[in-house]
Amino acid sequence: MSKGVTPQSKDYAKWYTDVVQKAELADYSPVKGCMVIRPYGYALWENIKSELDRMFKETGHVNAYFPMLIPESFLKKEADHVEGFAPELAVVTHGGGKLLEEPLVIRPTSETIIWSMYKKWINSYRDLPLLINQWANVVRWEMRTRLFLRTTEFLWQEGHTAHATAQEAVDEALKMINVYKDFAEEYMAMPVIHGKKTEKEKFAGAIDTYTIEAMMGDKRALQSGTSHYLGQNFAKAFDVTFQNENNEQEYVYASSWGVSTRLVGALIMAHGDDKGLILPPRLAPYQVVIVPIYRDDASRTQVMPYVERITASLKEQGVRFHVDDRETLSPGFKFNDWEMKGVPLRVEVGPRDVESGNLVVVRRDKGEKDIKSKDAFLGSVCELLNAIQKDMFQSRKAFRESNTTDIGSYDELKTLIEAGGFARAWWDGSGEDEITIQEDIKATVRCIPFEQPGGEGTCFYTGRKTKRQVILAKAY
Amino acid sequence: MSKGVTPQSKDYAKWYTDVVQKAELADYSPVKGCMVIRPYGYALWENIKSELDRMFKETGHVNAYFPMLIPESFLKKEADHVEGFAPELAVVTHGGGKLLEEPLVIRPTSETIIWSMYKKWINSYRDLPLLINQWANVVRWEMRTRLFLRTTEFLWQEGHTAHATAQEAVDEALKMINVYKDFAEEYMAMPVIHGKKTEKEKFAGAIDTYTIEAMMGDKRALQSGTSHYLGQNFAKAFDVTFQNENNEQEYVYASSWGVSTRLVGALIMAHGDDKGLILPPRLAPYQVVIVPIYRDDASRTQVMPYVERITASLKEQGVRFHVDDRETLSPGFKFNDWEMKGVPLRVEVGPRDVESGNLVVVRRDKGEKDIKSKDAFLGSVCELLNAIQKDMFQSRKAFRESNTTDIGSYDELKTLIEAGGFARAWWDGSGEDEITIQEDIKATVRCIPFEQPGGEGTCFYTGRKTKRQVILAKAY
Repeated sequence: MSKGVTPQSKDYAKWYTDVVQKAELADYSPVKGCMVIRPYGYALWENIKSELDRMFKETGHVNAYFPMLIPESFLKKEADHVEGFAPELAVVTHGGGKLLEEPLVIRPTSETIIWSMYKKWINSYRDLPLLINQWANVVRWEMRTRLFLRTTEFLWQEGHTAHATAQEAVDEALKMINVYKDFAEEYMAMPVIHGKKTEKEKFAGAIDTYTIEAMMGDKRALQSGTSHYLGQNFAKAFDVTFQNENNEQEYVYASSWGVSTRLVGALIMAHGDDKGLILPPRLAPYQVVIVPIYRDDASRTQVMPYVERITASLKEQGVRFHVDDRETLSPGFKFNDWEMKGVPLRVEVGPRDVESGNLVVVRRDKGEKDIKSKDAFLGSVCELLNAIQKDMFQSRKAFRESNTTDIGSYDELKTLIEAGGFARAWWDGSGEDEITIQEDIKATVRCIPFEQPGGEGTCFYTGRKTKRQVILAKAY
Repeated sequence: MSKGVTPQSKDYAKWYTDVVQKAELADYSPVKGCMVIRPYGYALWENIKSELDRMFKETGHVNAYFPMLIPESFLKKEADHVEGFAPELAVVTHGGGKLLEEPLVIRPTSETIIWSMYKKWINSYRDLPLLINQWANVVRWEMRTRLFLRTTEFLWQEGHTAHATAQEAVDEALKMINVYKDFAEEYMAMPVIHGKKTEKEKFAGAIDTYTIEAMMGDKRALQSGTSHYLGQNFAKAFDVTFQNENNEQEYVYASSWGVSTRLVGALIMAHGDDKGLILPPRLAPYQVVIVPIYRDDASRTQVMPYVERITASLKEQGVRFHVDDRETLSPGFKFNDWEMKGVPLRVEVGPRDVESGNLVVVRRDKGEKDIKSKDAFLGSVCELLNAIQKDMFQSRKAFRESNTTDIGSYDELKTLIEAGGFARAWWDGSGEDEITIQEDIKATVRCIPFEQPGGEGTCFYTGRKTKRQVILAKAY
């Protein structure tokens, strides 16, 4: 379990799957493309979920649950939507031993089933806005899968909101991409660029898609969350109108937004190193692991009451901790194991520490080893966890900045993409240009950042003047 | 929305579906047999989930997530299991536009997929016990469905544990049925009888099934949670062995246990009356609803600051509250609406209350209306909520006891079942006898209660002497 992983420099993809398995985050399932989320990985997802759920509720949303099975005909009601999702559908043809009259698809996303219900619930402007979220599993048949990043079944949340005006729906989509940005930066310690997708990259059925893009340890981009302004597309497909304040019937405006278990993959690749995971304290299942060190019953009797005094204080302070008192394993094995699992702080306590009233503290992010008095440690542990959280964010921000380059020509882009990193560039190309570049060098326009430099420049590809800068990169 | 419901005495089944819809707990979906859980119903489920999840974690369990899609062949590996579930399966035959080589079933329960993984994870007695739970959706193709009680897709939790000895696995199954009993009684305010199922009624694949049975408002029984001792059945089906402390290979012992969104149906039917839901304070999404009463801006300006002082105190005390300040609705309409939604306490505040420093409090369970000083109310609101919680439990316990009858002959049973209620009886019949009785009078043996009177009596059906008493009733 705690044998090393393939070094990142040797094979980043292999490093990733090694860490997922050796940190016991997930495992392959008997069904191709599906994964088992193991307890340690699921604890991470639970922490992600609980913080996001709080943020959704604080911004006025409520949870509900819609059926997983959708009549196949529903998907076909929105033309772009079906084109985007038809190739990825899992289809139920038999139920209760009989061939179904109409096949059912397992939701790849829930716009269609939800808007078929909104038709029943929305009559007047007084019923709006409707701000509903659901936590659910979805299925998209994928050919090339990777644990957490791209699996046939995955867990996610999907918000689906209904509004009386276009502006309100756009504002909602923007609000939620900002919630995702705050979550990524403050909880995942992962800096993200938020911006708009190009026409080519937007969601099937959306008018505009917003995204947060993060840089992984191999300098590739990972799309980590999206929100969509859907206009009246789904309202028209499902005939959802409301009576506005002037007593006129009008189609409802919509947004949708989601993040998934892919965020666990983002956490792994944003922070991990050759020793394994490095987890930000705010999401780590355990923030502190304590490894008691003793050779015999006498020293055990000395060490364990000391450990209990430490854990009593941690508990009181609301710190999530674990005592690794497994009998058959050596301290060295345990150190490696918890480094693999990315616990932010490791505390070692042996008989000599008890005598001196000290303990050894090791930070996972910097690897720094420190001897502190027990009381000094307990008096500053929350501060220390906060400092780690901030340092991790700053470290990733510096990493991204030092790997983001302004490029002025297609050759510069090629060189950069080959070396790895984000390219910042003036862009006035078309969707077809994007396809050409993608086929040529595997880079895509990740987003048109909300933060623009102002002024104008020359598009590196078309040579035309433009006011728009974009980020290009290879992506997961 | 707030028009009345069909009276229970007129048509209990109609009363139930009226309440589900008018309290906005759930709605019918476009797919037959599936339901939409609306925000108010989902908030109830979230409260159920969060308390149960805490209880599971406090008893040493961890959460994980296993794939929803299971190879059809897995189901066939345990003979009783496939016989029980085959008629209810939903089958995915196509994925990504292609016919699958092997059809996949949507989990009706997860023993098979989970034990196929346990084979990978369990090698030695040191890997045991494995105490895993998952929160998930499952699908069982049902012919006759009812919102929450029996739907094709439902939400539940399923615990699946692996042990080194039979005794440990039995103890686990017993421990969890007791957790369910505690939850039902302390949180749902719903008394339950816990006991063992007969051979005929046990889970497909189990050696023993334990159950909690509650009495609904129409005196029928509702099976509200079950736990199973599975012996080595699934370990043998999936070849899961471990090396015991004597270095011998042995098959692993198993338990599984679950409760579902059916518990929401139980809450409705255990407590509801002709005005709608009556929710126990510990699970109610809102424990207190405040209806401010004013006719013009002047009285509004008087009332609202007073309401804010009340809510500030409720917030500080951790009471879940809601202020119904909807402009277009009358107080009377609002009273009916929140009675329908079962909020334990309604507070009414008008200009005269502000002047006298009072407020009006109405208990949903007893309908009692009380005028109290604001400070006296705020000083005792938590106590009052606790009192309601206890009174609701006591009321349901008294109801069950007054509707439980000892019967000594089949004729007495028939009379009782026709009138409605639980029958307590000495029982030594066979599974075939149970089927005969069920076909004859629609009553089933609900359980063999853990609490037995001792001694022996004469079986009302076979006339044989026996030490076993059972509960018989019509059930959902």
